[in-house]
Amino acid sequence: MLKEEKEDETPKNELPKDLGVGKADFSIWYNRIVQLADLVEKRYNVAGMFVWKPYGFRVMRNIKKLWDRLFTESGIEEMYFPLIVPIEYAQMNKSWFDGFQDEVFWVKGRGDEEATHILRPTGEPAMYPMFAIWIRSKKDLPLRIYETVSSFRYETKHTRTLIRDREITFWYEIHTAHATKEESEEELKEHIRINEEIWKALALPTIKMEKPQWEVFPGAVGAIEFYNIMPNGRMLENGSCNNLGQAYAKKFEITYMDENNQQQYVWQTCTGNGARYLVAVIALHGDDKGLILPPKIAPIQIIIIPIFKEDLSEILPTCEEVMRILQDAGLEVKIDQDMKTPGEKFYIWEIKGVPLRIEIGPKEVASKFITAVRRDLGKREKIEMKDMVTKVNILLDQIQNNLLIKVQKFYEEIIVEIDNFNELESTINEGKVAVIHWCRSGECADDLKKFEGIELVGSLLGNQELGSCIICGKSTKTMSYVARTY
Amino acid sequence: MLKEEKEDETPKNELPKDLGVGKADFSIWYNRIVQLADLVEKRYNVAGMFVWKPYGFRVMRNIKKLWDRLFTESGIEEMYFPLIVPIEYAQMNKSWFDGFQDEVFWVKGRGDEEATHILRPTGEPAMYPMFAIWIRSKKDLPLRIYETVSSFRYETKHTRTLIRDREITFWYEIHTAHATKEESEEELKEHIRINEEIWKALALPTIKMEKPQWEVFPGAVGAIEFYNIMPNGRMLENGSCNNLGQAYAKKFEITYMDENNQQQYVWQTCTGNGARYLVAVIALHGDDKGLILPPKIAPIQIIIIPIFKEDLSEILPTCEEVMRILQDAGLEVKIDQDMKTPGEKFYIWEIKGVPLRIEIGPKEVASKFITAVRRDLGKREKIEMKDMVTKVNILLDQIQNNLLIKVQKFYEEIIVEIDNFNELESTINEGKVAVIHWCRSGECADDLKKFEGIELVGSLLGNQELGSCIICGKSTKTMSYVARTY
Repeated sequence: MLKEEKEDETPKNELPKDLGVGKADFSIWYNRIVQLADLVEKRYNVAGMFVWKPYGFRVMRNIKKLWDRLFTESGIEEMYFPLIVPIEYAQMNKSWFDGFQDEVFWVKGRGDEEATHILRPTGEPAMYPMFAIWIRSKKDLPLRIYETVSSFRYETKHTRTLIRDREITFWYEIHTAHATKEESEEELKEHIRINEEIWKALALPTIKMEKPQWEVFPGAVGAIEFYNIMPNGRMLENGSCNNLGQAYAKKFEITYMDENNQQQYVWQTCTGNGARYLVAVIALHGDDKGLILPPKIAPIQIIIIPIFKEDLSEILPTCEEVMRILQDAGLEVKIDQDMKTPGEKFYIWEIKGVPLRIEIGPKEVASKFITAVRRDLGKREKIEMKDMVTKVNILLDQIQNNLLIKVQKFYEEIIVEIDNFNELESTINEGKVAVIHWCRSGECADDLKKFEGIELVGSLLGNQELGSCIICGKSTKTMSYVARTY
Repeated sequence: MLKEEKEDETPKNELPKDLGVGKADFSIWYNRIVQLADLVEKRYNVAGMFVWKPYGFRVMRNIKKLWDRLFTESGIEEMYFPLIVPIEYAQMNKSWFDGFQDEVFWVKGRGDEEATHILRPTGEPAMYPMFAIWIRSKKDLPLRIYETVSSFRYETKHTRTLIRDREITFWYEIHTAHATKEESEEELKEHIRINEEIWKALALPTIKMEKPQWEVFPGAVGAIEFYNIMPNGRMLENGSCNNLGQAYAKKFEITYMDENNQQQYVWQTCTGNGARYLVAVIALHGDDKGLILPPKIAPIQIIIIPIFKEDLSEILPTCEEVMRILQDAGLEVKIDQDMKTPGEKFYIWEIKGVPLRIEIGPKEVASKFITAVRRDLGKREKIEMKDMVTKVNILLDQIQNNLLIKVQKFYEEIIVEIDNFNELESTINEGKVAVIHWCRSGECADDLKKFEGIELVGSLLGNQELGSCIICGKSTKTMSYVARTY
């Protein structure tokens, strides 16, 4: 039996009073945690849109800094295209637009009878007409650019903050054009490598797979997608690297003159992702007490809590000295000087997922040590102040590693290899992800549709051990994930 | 006689072939330079919108980094609000919206009969309903936030790239709320101080003035605005710091409970600016050859040009060593290895405004020196390689200072004190900016309207030397700028 997932019933115009539930009630927990950890404000009165609060913005900005650095190091240059796209650009890819025009926001002046512009749902219709202008000869290639920008979808589906929004904020898109197929394939490998670097900094294991051909953009060659498995067993698409072949080049007439004075279509790739990185961090690292941020992206890595009965001033100079020493070592540190009890402060910073707490009270001041408490394990440790920088750095590394290992273990438990078709539905309904052998035929994949909400998500890359297609029994070296998805 | 200013007649869908004109033809020069220096792509087919090219984006990103750092150091926190604003938020400030609804973009779904949302023209209608939710008691104050975002105006006026756009990119807005009037006034001083820091990094002198009361936002207390004088004598508004008093608090019901359990309206400020910083840099530092970027914001501070007849490989190792040494010293350096003549390369990097060029040829390699050429003066200097880091840093400082001094001199020449009403029009028509004594009355300011296009722009801060109002003759300590504006 499928475990019924309850949704949070806090009205959109109210803030949840407290977390109230454990992570086992994932959907409610997630909805409350994004607000209580002060990541976002959901009371903005447009469905599917929200405000980034300063703390949430800083977390997301740290994740963005990862991709900005990695793209720049790789020579992918940043640009910015207008958010408003004229309809004639969108219509260059007519089949796409015909299917898409109900899912976009239309823009018009007050007096205009008809809207002739849309808010960008995705980069291609704004970018590719420009590519067609910029690319003339081989020396204009490769063209390798990205932008980070909002995308807009007039979603009819149920929206979920950061997972399915109507304004998709912090959305990056890499778009590249190349003279040869081989070059575009190498490019895609680079995008995959970069994504793996990002996942590493997020302390999350990478699940990457090949998208089924019928789900690839029309005319494109293929796509590699990254996925996470959420605590409820559903898979979340989290980044896709698309080999567009020449499909878009042909729609947008993006050509170059080759050595023989022949016009050739370019080969293209595009890769995109955004705030869903943060969704994975929230969902996979968090616990019943709140968020747990990996040290590599935490805007506050260490929170110092002065422990005192009456007189903060006896403790504060030591707190400040500790802060200064750790800051000089390049760490992000804050002292919480609020007039609350230590217990209240622990509660707040645990919800916000600060990886390490340092407590400094009269005992610590007297004997020159600090007490460090790890957010991930709750483990306390006394550290002599003279060893502080080294020890604290070791602890942060251990937290970063431990978070990764915890998720790896969770994945190992939740991913189950199934070779009997009759076990498939019940396994997935227990909240598991199934890995099956599959013969790659559309017919066999269609057979899965009889299980409502269950999908063939994608296939493991490369050849796997030989086995029999779970549906038709044909021998195959392809293994695929079957799961519920977002 | 007013010098007729010609506009560039290059069609929007074509790139200008070359600069063609000197800076004296400012309007044409400006339009061509933003494209030829590869700052923006104007061939995007929406009026008043353009694409940021990688080089332009990097310049602008460097300017943005200035404000990000300064705001953060000041404790002003970054947030992000949705770009789509529901009409009920906009209507909370009804008088504002009644006047504004023809100047905004309306947003709707394809099936929707009526548009019920707008694209943000400015921050208040998205932010202040949230302020009303967030601010409850004195401990929620001060609230000091900013965001950098696009704003949208359905301009009916003639648009000009980066000066008047329909999508106003890289637009920051600081919004703050305070418990007392005094605190909000201190806040505004901080915003002015930050702006002055930015102007310093841009090597531009600050002209700040008090806006005439009738041009201040309705109900607000006052505003300080920054201006530049363009080469054609027109003044360009470039940043405004607004003392909103309690006007907006009353419209949006932003209140806090004071010590006596009384609801009090908050005191607010807002400060905004964006890509116009770059306009001032382009217009005031550039020359007949192109852009000149101040070293503090140049994405490439030094361009190395290898000078060789046939064999780059004899020169390249030295070029690379020089680059490495300068990069290790924290400088932004690039080698131009294109297969063009040195003359062609000089031309390109001069247009792009790279502050320092280093030429390295066989002679330089043999005798261990480099030849440095300043973009601002064209002056050549031989530098021994062993002194390179020190000498190059001195040169960059000198360029930064010289750019500032050049503009200061230009301002000294173009600003003319006038005490005879009859000389006013002719002085301004000669491309000057007039400074006059003015009694602060609206009637006297109205008298200026008989000169078409000439405005009382604003007044110098604080008391000036006593004089007679140029219009009515009344004694006054106020002096004001009178000029043509953008």
